[in-house]
Amino acid sequence: MSRRQIHLALHPYGVGGPGQHGLWKDPRVAKDASIDIRYYIDLAQAAEAALFDALFVVDSQFINATYPAHYLNRLEPLTLLSAVATHTTHLGLVATASSTYNSPFNLARRLASLDLISGGRAGWNVVTSFDTGTSRNYGLEEHLDYTTRYGRALEFVEVARGLWDSYEDDAFPADVERNLFLDPSRLHELNHVGEHFSVAGPLNISRSAQGQPVIFQAGVSEEGRAFAAEVAEGIYAPGGSLEQAQTYYRDIKRRTAAAGRNPDHIKIFIHGSPVVGATDDEARRREQEIFDEDNDFGRNLALLGRSFGAYDFSVHDLDAPFPDVAHLAERGGRTSATAIIERARRDNLTLRQVAESLGGFRRTPFVGAPDTVADAIETWFEAGTFDGINLAFRTREELDRFVDGVVPILRRRGLFRTEYTSDTLRGNLGLPVPVNRHAAAREGVDASRVAS
Amino acid sequence: MSRRQIHLALHPYGVGGPGQHGLWKDPRVAKDASIDIRYYIDLAQAAEAALFDALFVVDSQFINATYPAHYLNRLEPLTLLSAVATHTTHLGLVATASSTYNSPFNLARRLASLDLISGGRAGWNVVTSFDTGTSRNYGLEEHLDYTTRYGRALEFVEVARGLWDSYEDDAFPADVERNLFLDPSRLHELNHVGEHFSVAGPLNISRSAQGQPVIFQAGVSEEGRAFAAEVAEGIYAPGGSLEQAQTYYRDIKRRTAAAGRNPDHIKIFIHGSPVVGATDDEARRREQEIFDEDNDFGRNLALLGRSFGAYDFSVHDLDAPFPDVAHLAERGGRTSATAIIERARRDNLTLRQVAESLGGFRRTPFVGAPDTVADAIETWFEAGTFDGINLAFRTREELDRFVDGVVPILRRRGLFRTEYTSDTLRGNLGLPVPVNRHAAAREGVDASRVAS
Repeated sequence: MSRRQIHLALHPYGVGGPGQHGLWKDPRVAKDASIDIRYYIDLAQAAEAALFDALFVVDSQFINATYPAHYLNRLEPLTLLSAVATHTTHLGLVATASSTYNSPFNLARRLASLDLISGGRAGWNVVTSFDTGTSRNYGLEEHLDYTTRYGRALEFVEVARGLWDSYEDDAFPADVERNLFLDPSRLHELNHVGEHFSVAGPLNISRSAQGQPVIFQAGVSEEGRAFAAEVAEGIYAPGGSLEQAQTYYRDIKRRTAAAGRNPDHIKIFIHGSPVVGATDDEARRREQEIFDEDNDFGRNLALLGRSFGAYDFSVHDLDAPFPDVAHLAERGGRTSATAIIERARRDNLTLRQVAESLGGFRRTPFVGAPDTVADAIETWFEAGTFDGINLAFRTREELDRFVDGVVPILRRRGLFRTEYTSDTLRGNLGLPVPVNRHAAAREGVDASRVAS
Repeated sequence: MSRRQIHLALHPYGVGGPGQHGLWKDPRVAKDASIDIRYYIDLAQAAEAALFDALFVVDSQFINATYPAHYLNRLEPLTLLSAVATHTTHLGLVATASSTYNSPFNLARRLASLDLISGGRAGWNVVTSFDTGTSRNYGLEEHLDYTTRYGRALEFVEVARGLWDSYEDDAFPADVERNLFLDPSRLHELNHVGEHFSVAGPLNISRSAQGQPVIFQAGVSEEGRAFAAEVAEGIYAPGGSLEQAQTYYRDIKRRTAAAGRNPDHIKIFIHGSPVVGATDDEARRREQEIFDEDNDFGRNLALLGRSFGAYDFSVHDLDAPFPDVAHLAERGGRTSATAIIERARRDNLTLRQVAESLGGFRRTPFVGAPDTVADAIETWFEAGTFDGINLAFRTREELDRFVDGVVPILRRRGLFRTEYTSDTLRGNLGLPVPVNRHAAAREGVDASRVAS
């Protein structure tokens, strides 16, 4: 049997907000890259040429003039990926979309459309939108609380999956002799009535070659992990040290098994911003340069505020102990807010010290000459910290250095594919194609089977 | 000054529901055309090669197994057109989307994305979703009534337009020397609070080359015409006789002027399904064949029901006078329902007679040899019945017959363009590029200017 292999996804940076990654100042980077579809098509084609599994597009729906937005001027992910779809043939296309600020019928349709347009390569990164300000773009004065958002997300995914099974795969015989275009017995209403949604269905779109879009998610809280175990097929893991990543990996796999699912059917991706140089020294110097040029105090202070519902920390004394803002944790990303508070208390940090510790550039262990980076990736992979890496590069040049330098080494070691073995995202990730629930019920078969 | 010219849009048929147009039985038509993005890309490229103004994609969000759905298995319009966008360079891309079952922030973003991806070629056909059953896909037991739907539509367009002006055109100086990527004074919150929506903004996407997507609409009721006069820039007209089309055209232009707008800035499209033959006789025979093969009594009865909220007319005696269903008109397309009732009463028709009069294929005056069709088009155009024709063809062959036979004649007569003179939809339609409202307010200029 061949060696278990690593999955690689590409997370394209756009050129973002005030100071974001300092990237807009780089003369090699187009200032309007984040709204230029050719920028994304070029990156997608580069990722596909390197045999990556997927392109992963993040999203947020809240900005203001001073907010440290990663998302100041961005194409909407599903529209973006639909344009990319017809310029690629094997690359998975994962769109971030909020379960808090969409309706299941509408979003399920859009994802199903991308899935058909791409020939079975769509993925949905389910987010609950922790930016408090988003609610005011949707007529809500109060942001939904954490537990409500997760409850809604879980029900949303259930509804979407139900809608995606509206048509069985043999619903359209298009049989002229029998005068039968649609076989009505193969079209199913959903008639879902739940706590958050009532959706009759059926959806007016049939299934793709991979059955249904792949569900990704990035939760780290208790609710987030429960959600992952129940419905996620791909996870964007929080990262941290090797030991932290191992612990997270084992916890998610254990919970998934406990939920009655095959733990191989949830793929855990860690974040990686590899910095590859001709030598280890050169790469480490380059990493420090990136970190420094990216480290803007005002931006870091605003970034800190994001975890507390866009709270303005500048009203506090920077050199006093970290203020008591525990009551704001529910308004933002509760897990990150709580972690920040706990660390500040434990290490007795001032507000300035906390803000200074938050660089936009996330250091990862994958820094060095190509062999060094490949070694680090192999070590982490063999230690059971991830199934895949979600790669972010500031420039095309840095992507190419990784693809030309590191990927061939991983390939020689049998750690990364030498050709695509499937045309679908599920196929490439080794995820099962879900059998249509109605066909399964009638035929008495198990509702999941492994992709061929 | 050159002659006033005709605009041409293409409305691609998909292969639809049970019996729809009988089209799925045609061996030249792919059974899964309606979910095959290549089908749409091919048609779009053919339309662009013929120098058409736009591709127009219809939509509906309600089906069931017996409903005479045009939309049984369809790609979602914005996802579809985004994929088409990068395979075309001049063709306008008009997506139907419901103002009743979307949120303004989300839909405005998606339309703005298509507008940027296409380089300023997006249009939005605003519909209020008259299919009663749609409400049950969105958690509403009761369909919104007619007046509420139109009030919501008008406010929705106002909010979308406000969001589309979030960034002034010079909002991103990306000036390294001044360390200024975004000029915050050029980013504007909307802070809309209205009867149907509260939306803070700003939108996180900037304007395209045409400023904002073009607003299309198809209302014929009093509310629909008032909506048109106030905000629409393109109209899909109801059709009818030459005199009816003239009356409608004059009414819309008059109302638009009365609303303080330039009546040239609303383009009225009539529906056309030209049938072109080598001779007039051949074309007329072909038209009758199409009408006959498309004329399915059961389908027509269900189609009739659509105007009354998917009402099942089969419970009535077919040969008794048309039943009293006036109370159901509000549940469906009120204008068409009322017209049906009035005609049945006036002409003393039975239910069977009313149903038989409803063929799916809409006869138009554009039937004959190429010269005959060109003459008819010129006559109708010069009579002031339309600014453009929204063309529907059952097969690619019929499109080609029109493009190869009729379009060159129109061109020779100076009635249709010989080359694109603009890259944007506004430019090709002769519609003004709206100046950003915030720039206009600051500079004291008029908030609309004609596209160059």
